[in-house]
Amino acid sequence: MSYYQQHHSQFLEGLQAFLRIPSVSTLSEHKGDVRRAAEFVRDELRAAGMTTAELIEGNGNPLVYAEWLGAPGKPTILFYGHYDVQPPDPLDEWKSPPFEPQIRGDDIFARGSADDKGQVYIQIKAVEGLLKATGRLPVNAKFLIEGEEETGGDHIEAYVKSKPSRLRADAAVVCDTEMVSAELPTICIGLRGIVYGELWVEGADHDLHSGVYGGAAPNPLQALAEIVCALKDREGHIRIPGFYDGVLPPGPKEREAWARLPFNEEEYTHKEMGARELVGEPGVPLFERLWARPTFEIHGIRGGFTGQGAKTVIPARAMAKISTRLVANQRPEKAAEQLKAAIQAACPKGVTAEFRLIHMGAPSLTNPGNRFIHAAADAMKQVFGRETVYVRSGGSIPIVGIFEEYLGIPSVMMGFGLPDDNLHAPNEKFHLPNFFRGIESIGRYLEVLGK
Amino acid sequence: MSYYQQHHSQFLEGLQAFLRIPSVSTLSEHKGDVRRAAEFVRDELRAAGMTTAELIEGNGNPLVYAEWLGAPGKPTILFYGHYDVQPPDPLDEWKSPPFEPQIRGDDIFARGSADDKGQVYIQIKAVEGLLKATGRLPVNAKFLIEGEEETGGDHIEAYVKSKPSRLRADAAVVCDTEMVSAELPTICIGLRGIVYGELWVEGADHDLHSGVYGGAAPNPLQALAEIVCALKDREGHIRIPGFYDGVLPPGPKEREAWARLPFNEEEYTHKEMGARELVGEPGVPLFERLWARPTFEIHGIRGGFTGQGAKTVIPARAMAKISTRLVANQRPEKAAEQLKAAIQAACPKGVTAEFRLIHMGAPSLTNPGNRFIHAAADAMKQVFGRETVYVRSGGSIPIVGIFEEYLGIPSVMMGFGLPDDNLHAPNEKFHLPNFFRGIESIGRYLEVLGK
Repeated sequence: MSYYQQHHSQFLEGLQAFLRIPSVSTLSEHKGDVRRAAEFVRDELRAAGMTTAELIEGNGNPLVYAEWLGAPGKPTILFYGHYDVQPPDPLDEWKSPPFEPQIRGDDIFARGSADDKGQVYIQIKAVEGLLKATGRLPVNAKFLIEGEEETGGDHIEAYVKSKPSRLRADAAVVCDTEMVSAELPTICIGLRGIVYGELWVEGADHDLHSGVYGGAAPNPLQALAEIVCALKDREGHIRIPGFYDGVLPPGPKEREAWARLPFNEEEYTHKEMGARELVGEPGVPLFERLWARPTFEIHGIRGGFTGQGAKTVIPARAMAKISTRLVANQRPEKAAEQLKAAIQAACPKGVTAEFRLIHMGAPSLTNPGNRFIHAAADAMKQVFGRETVYVRSGGSIPIVGIFEEYLGIPSVMMGFGLPDDNLHAPNEKFHLPNFFRGIESIGRYLEVLGK
Repeated sequence: MSYYQQHHSQFLEGLQAFLRIPSVSTLSEHKGDVRRAAEFVRDELRAAGMTTAELIEGNGNPLVYAEWLGAPGKPTILFYGHYDVQPPDPLDEWKSPPFEPQIRGDDIFARGSADDKGQVYIQIKAVEGLLKATGRLPVNAKFLIEGEEETGGDHIEAYVKSKPSRLRADAAVVCDTEMVSAELPTICIGLRGIVYGELWVEGADHDLHSGVYGGAAPNPLQALAEIVCALKDREGHIRIPGFYDGVLPPGPKEREAWARLPFNEEEYTHKEMGARELVGEPGVPLFERLWARPTFEIHGIRGGFTGQGAKTVIPARAMAKISTRLVANQRPEKAAEQLKAAIQAACPKGVTAEFRLIHMGAPSLTNPGNRFIHAAADAMKQVFGRETVYVRSGGSIPIVGIFEEYLGIPSVMMGFGLPDDNLHAPNEKFHLPNFFRGIESIGRYLEVLGK
């Protein structure tokens, strides 16, 4: 029995301790918890046997850096993950409290269990296993774990941009994606980018009575609806001029591989998503809509009276949180400009509209022939006993583009989450069998690379 | 010097006491204040010399009833007003606290000052003046003052529907409208009706991550935007099938009279409304858009994440408060059915939409040749020294339709508010010179009718 197999209960206890820290980076009242989570990660890395493990302070939440460089001549792997989590609201929809991890069946339920604490912990325990069992690692390893992934903070970007020599590496290993299904080892080779911000619409300088002024007064909520409807048609096609110009369609081989992926539309739609039916661009296959097509979404709208009863007000202003997801080879800066221009063009009479950028990140797409990706597929195949499949993800992991741009290294996205993990939603969970297989997979990966 | 002129300071003190009661009927925490306001009105009517003054309890906030029937053979006038007020939010936009009346220049600032406490108080002080000065009234008078006008409660409707003999009257006097300008006596002969409710849109049964599911998941906020855009075009024309079928256009004489009303578009747009420009159906004159055309408005939207920062959520559900204003001869029941059908027809794929009615009221239109209206125009002309003009109002006073339907009486809408009174908005005010002229006008009206 390996070190890994002997330490399941200790790994589980440690993970629970990590999940109990409410490190919600978008809420300032959790600032102290966010720091506690960083310290937890640092202490775990030190205990695992990394020679250096420390916090890097800067403008924002601390980064956790660690290294073990005892394998000269061997490749250097830079592990990335994030210790911050999404806000847990709406709280009343959780079956168990978001920061009191609960194991039900094969799953552990807690905010951050899959995104991304469970996966960061996989990386830490993988190197711990090798260091404790053999006293060394087969390759050199570095860790850079951040605390602003969910809030779009730029501490890590600013740090990586400065290209510190200690970040030199041959490849990054990013554990923040998911597998197609619980038994199918999966490597993600593409991510969508994002442009996220607020759309502010202003009408009169004070709220107006809809009886007295209705028919003459501009209504910012109606205007906001008109603008978002102008940006996307009823079938899901984005109507921002030039928006699809940079979109690189998937090649025929990738399309064929996607068509062969195991997929149960009934279960995906009704059970996983809890939806009545799927929507989106007609004629575009589902995986292409999710992975290789840009989207436009409204995340929230604030404005006017929404309390109990009736108030006949035409509000002075309204705000929507909006984003677009980008795919290779769209550029975020250009997409943001196109979005801004389209908002101005769609702005109706009587109101002003303004887009205020919160954050953006580039899409990424890696060649699966890369040796670091190939070795990862091999390692996962050994642990899971099945051929590894290549997919993309519809989400955005800005760090992948940042590593590529400033460190010149590819990212190997070995993810161990599952499609029904309820990321960013109530009852987030992580599948425990893959927590343990994930630890073994990363360990095996380092061994494969070290040969 | 008349009783009225001798008691300006007492009238003002009494009004301030009335305005200090935060009788917000839409907020359950003000239930006690609402009752206090009812008792205040009852006590004032009793002190004024009405022979009966009492609360009528029922399902909802109490009605205040009072009567003086000492003029057999003379007409009977039923005074109507409401003692409840709109919520004061947003509180931080008030220059002085909403329930601490403050006199600045010729105006008194407080929630309810114009809508409708100031006007109810005009009615009470008018009969008080006659009763104190002459020991009697020139006609018979009844009062029915309600406390659910702002919340659409149906206590008064249920009571009037039961046609109690004590409500028998020849005409109602409703003081809840406004004058064209401070010096121009105005009688309102038409009101818009209303259908008010909530539009609920539901997508998946839980919130979804916009990266993972964007491109396949229905977004209730986008769907809500699509529905409201389907209900009204960008020029303000309602697109609900059949909605304009019942609309009675104003006659040529009424249109000409409206065109002669004093009106400064610059001042109306920029100063009164605080808007950049007027919007609405092209080619339809402003007063016709406000008084004789139906509207559709969104009053508030709730759904998704609107806090600080970024959350990439596709929310499970969204809600909008919506209403349409109706004009003669549209029927509210029919309009609500048309609205519901149009919402279903506009509901996009992947979501459900449901309209939940909160309240409705019929539009009304009275013939200005009616003797009770004619006498009111005469009385106001005597007090203000200028010819009275006939207008309509864009607002909704459901009681006018209810009096017509169940008591068979016309309503004389003598209003003393002004267009810039900030009804339903921060810094509501009432113009004090017209508070005093209003009291004299009602007193003179009873004298004219008694001749």
